[in-house]
Amino acid sequence: MKKEVALEEVVGVTLDTMRKVGLLLVSVDKEGKPNAMTIGWGFIGILWAEPSFVIAVRPSRYTYKLLEESNDFTVNVPAKGMEDVVSYCGTVSGRYTDKFKDCNLTSLKSKYVKSPIIKECIIHYECIVRYKYDLEPSKVPRDITSLWYPTNDFHRIYIGRIEAVYADEDYKSKTY
Amino acid sequence: MKKEVALEEVVGVTLDTMRKVGLLLVSVDKEGKPNAMTIGWGFIGILWAEPSFVIAVRPSRYTYKLLEESNDFTVNVPAKGMEDVVSYCGTVSGRYTDKFKDCNLTSLKSKYVKSPIIKECIIHYECIVRYKYDLEPSKVPRDITSLWYPTNDFHRIYIGRIEAVYADEDYKSKTY
Repeated sequence: MKKEVALEEVVGVTLDTMRKVGLLLVSVDKEGKPNAMTIGWGFIGILWAEPSFVIAVRPSRYTYKLLEESNDFTVNVPAKGMEDVVSYCGTVSGRYTDKFKDCNLTSLKSKYVKSPIIKECIIHYECIVRYKYDLEPSKVPRDITSLWYPTNDFHRIYIGRIEAVYADEDYKSKTY
Repeated sequence: MKKEVALEEVVGVTLDTMRKVGLLLVSVDKEGKPNAMTIGWGFIGILWAEPSFVIAVRPSRYTYKLLEESNDFTVNVPAKGMEDVVSYCGTVSGRYTDKFKDCNLTSLKSKYVKSPIIKECIIHYECIVRYKYDLEPSKVPRDITSLWYPTNDFHRIYIGRIEAVYADEDYKSKTY
């Protein structure tokens, strides 16, 4: 059973899990087929008085194409024990396979956005893109460019307004 | 006594206080004189594997000038009871007055950045600007433009790498 929670209550666990194993970003194609991608970077906060989740996606990613089409996404915090899923979704591209099927993930309809959530995860953010921008290569610190952008695949940053945050009732016993 | 803490431990309280009353952003001029500005918006997260604090500052602000010169800042979480300070620092400009003096705030030397921290606050983030960009007016949602930018004073966004996070030992008893 998933219940609405306060952003402040789950933000610590979300950042902690993002740093330890990663989170699962879900987007959806025009036919309604969802795709999950692992993210290790992201921000939670407030802009324009709107609670928001910021994600960074490289143009080469399949998720980039879906985000550009659907303009919404969900972020899902994996439960303890989902390391294999997180690792798989961070390695394989949704262009060539159905990661939900491959990983036995269950997609559940979201309340406010087209992209579904992952039932097996414990905390969920539903987001609608409100602003996006591309990192300007010349403004990125040099140490960062050589480390993270050797092929010039600079991220597009998406600021998504959080429409809802909810969690498993017993999420605290399932965190990393 | 202030002690180092994990980002995940204090991020919930930080967002909560930001939403309820505001946080105090401190920057410093070339002569070393600090200035505090109240912020109600901001993000905490990870980019390029670096824990970071994102702030938004309008070009008209005195803080904007200081940030452009010093390239670093601190974010300070006020203790319960500091409502008047937060309100004052969100109303008056540091161009015309010394807000630290006016509010009886004590500036303490930071460990890694030029901008000091505010002793009376309970949680502190020291940050160095790693990336900045200007919101593009044409890409900001229309409802946001009319609500927040009637005079076209669009924010510059600063992504600051968090060099240190520390807190009063008894900060939990002093939060909002």
